[in-house]
Amino acid sequence: MKGETHRVVIIGGGFGGLYAARSLGSSPVQVTMVDRRNFHLFQPLLYQVATGGLSPANIAAPLRRILVRQRNTEVVMADVADFDPENKKVILHDGEIAYDSLIVAAGAETGYFGQNQWAKLSPGLKSIEDATEIRRRVLSAFEQAERETDPKLREELLTFVIVGGGPTGVELAGALAEISHNTMKYDFRNINPADARILLVDAGERVLAPFPVELSTYAHDALVKLGVEVHNHHKVCNVEEDSVVVSHNDEETTIRAKTIIWAAGVQANPLGRKLAEKTGAKTDRGGRVMTEPDCTIAGHPEIFVIGDMACYAHQGEHPLPGVAPVAMQQGQYAAKTIVKRLQGKPVDPFHYHDPGSLATIGRSKAVAVLGKWKYTGFVAWVLWLVIHLMKLIQFESRLLVLMQWSWAYSTFNRSARLITGEDYRQEELQDILNS
Amino acid sequence: MKGETHRVVIIGGGFGGLYAARSLGSSPVQVTMVDRRNFHLFQPLLYQVATGGLSPANIAAPLRRILVRQRNTEVVMADVADFDPENKKVILHDGEIAYDSLIVAAGAETGYFGQNQWAKLSPGLKSIEDATEIRRRVLSAFEQAERETDPKLREELLTFVIVGGGPTGVELAGALAEISHNTMKYDFRNINPADARILLVDAGERVLAPFPVELSTYAHDALVKLGVEVHNHHKVCNVEEDSVVVSHNDEETTIRAKTIIWAAGVQANPLGRKLAEKTGAKTDRGGRVMTEPDCTIAGHPEIFVIGDMACYAHQGEHPLPGVAPVAMQQGQYAAKTIVKRLQGKPVDPFHYHDPGSLATIGRSKAVAVLGKWKYTGFVAWVLWLVIHLMKLIQFESRLLVLMQWSWAYSTFNRSARLITGEDYRQEELQDILNS
Repeated sequence: MKGETHRVVIIGGGFGGLYAARSLGSSPVQVTMVDRRNFHLFQPLLYQVATGGLSPANIAAPLRRILVRQRNTEVVMADVADFDPENKKVILHDGEIAYDSLIVAAGAETGYFGQNQWAKLSPGLKSIEDATEIRRRVLSAFEQAERETDPKLREELLTFVIVGGGPTGVELAGALAEISHNTMKYDFRNINPADARILLVDAGERVLAPFPVELSTYAHDALVKLGVEVHNHHKVCNVEEDSVVVSHNDEETTIRAKTIIWAAGVQANPLGRKLAEKTGAKTDRGGRVMTEPDCTIAGHPEIFVIGDMACYAHQGEHPLPGVAPVAMQQGQYAAKTIVKRLQGKPVDPFHYHDPGSLATIGRSKAVAVLGKWKYTGFVAWVLWLVIHLMKLIQFESRLLVLMQWSWAYSTFNRSARLITGEDYRQEELQDILNS
Repeated sequence: MKGETHRVVIIGGGFGGLYAARSLGSSPVQVTMVDRRNFHLFQPLLYQVATGGLSPANIAAPLRRILVRQRNTEVVMADVADFDPENKKVILHDGEIAYDSLIVAAGAETGYFGQNQWAKLSPGLKSIEDATEIRRRVLSAFEQAERETDPKLREELLTFVIVGGGPTGVELAGALAEISHNTMKYDFRNINPADARILLVDAGERVLAPFPVELSTYAHDALVKLGVEVHNHHKVCNVEEDSVVVSHNDEETTIRAKTIIWAAGVQANPLGRKLAEKTGAKTDRGGRVMTEPDCTIAGHPEIFVIGDMACYAHQGEHPLPGVAPVAMQQGQYAAKTIVKRLQGKPVDPFHYHDPGSLATIGRSKAVAVLGKWKYTGFVAWVLWLVIHLMKLIQFESRLLVLMQWSWAYSTFNRSARLITGEDYRQEELQDILNS
């Protein structure tokens, strides 16, 4: 009988995929969750790993653990290579999986507007490895500055450029400002960490563009008060080793900086384009797959594309934004749709209920839009804290994060300030081999 | 006047170096702590990072933070390349530092008995990178086994060989047994993690050789009860890709295993031999520097060598073991000796006060020797927990570790089960560059 059970394959264990899998937990279907990582990552807090406030395991939970009680669900750690929609198969790098319904939710990655050579010079913030790499670069820059005697080089080491004024850029800039002004205040003997320049460079008119104007203004002022130099209307023309070229009013300036962080854009996982090729679906400029009102692909009602990989343009003026609530709701919708169809019930189009938006700037400073209500300052910050804690998948993570936040709030310390990386193990191996 | 202050340079922020630095905190000397990492690592709990129980930041604390209140102390993150004892200088890869007194405490690294080509095949457990690499290999082996259809390959994936029956080997074997029998019990659909074979291979007569015989026997039995195959009198003759060759009663056997972990030996940091060359000091087989009764080098009363880098043979039958309490006490002794000399006071030779030994095997199972008293089982385990928590450097770490241990004890879960590593970032960059 097992062979006759409806097989749902979900690609990606992010918000979309995970919420889909959970919604199917007690349905009479067979679920296979495919991810190339063994954990679900709570991306909204990734910037706190990048800035030494939290550890990777605090915001990542093993997928097997999350889904352990769902006896109809299997987790497969594998790389998806391609699709065979005709034969209803997902092609893996080392095998294939057959499906009756497919939910594609492989998310997005950092996008460099086609300038992919910038990736090595200016890491984005999408994975745990990105976060520990940014942490390594930021902390190493302060360490090197402490030992640098050339004032010009020291200045370059203490200049941090963040490209992109969306929530990630704002949160990173705020956290970096707090690190340099508070956390590391007394840590050095030759430099004053507060001398660090933190530049937030954004091509648009204002930071946090999707928020109401007055909240953008609040965020801007809060950043400036923290010591961040906010540069709107500045477009990045080039990223080079230790410098960024920006253009403002048709005038180009070169900013010398050892640390450049890219928070300016994302593009859909390349699997989007592969799926589009095979199914004839369209993609938008960011590689997102255009979907029908029911989140499926035209001509393929059995293939759902959801979350950051999907361009859903059937509600409102603009396509839905690439944020967690859209992915979660689309995941739940796809799951329910599959079950309803099996039951022969009619299905309504997807409808996004916007729960609001939040962004934090720093200690006691945040902005929030919940329905008609707008909040700034301490209230928004508490809202941000509570909502992010609640949304963390594991109860243990909530406790650990809460404890670290309380500790950081009262001591200004950030305990996860480790410079780690493969470099060291390679070096040690080299030492051993040479010795 | 600053130039006339006595300059103490400490190489290494491990137990020895850190305890020396702290002892000098309010002395009229200028202290420089040199380490190539930016944190102090609590090595006794490293095996818990390797087995997904704790996060790196829980057992590592930024050196600057630990020493932030010591206004006479400077932290320098740098690589030591060599020594110039004639001119009292430490040569860095990129500079030099002058000293009046030098404390060399650069610790030990994994030793492969001269077979350095084994290092890549069988990682040791001395650094955070080692620990996350072992974690990656162990968890990946289970993931691959879940997808492997060839029963022979599956068996190899589920075979874990730990070389060395000292505390690290015993602790790793116990933790791996618990992971496979408890933590991951319901995680997989195609394999039973409890089928994993965990082999502890040791050349000696019994595990935990430095402990009294009855404690070794207890540990042996506890391991066997957990499902570990303990092989004493088995010497490793060769390590190859996916296999270990062991010899027992002059008969060689090949064990096929995808995961081989090396806990069989350490050797002093190579700086020991460099220092010996420059000063005429002697080293032992493990590269440890032979020291005088006052922990200095013959002919160089201003150079102290302490901890795992030193061979101190003036107390008891054997040289002092490479354990944390020796390093801590020698660090404090070196600091006090420097101050006493400046005051013109006489100095007694170093004397080690053995506070006892502890090793844990698993849940509620440990052995402890404290003075004349020997403990096994629950009592020893509670002692182990309390002492390790107390010895963690930061109060915040103590809380976080305590919380994770309580959680793990009640749920059998280990939340830090992440497969991470530079591989992923490299791959992503490749994806971006190719796209």
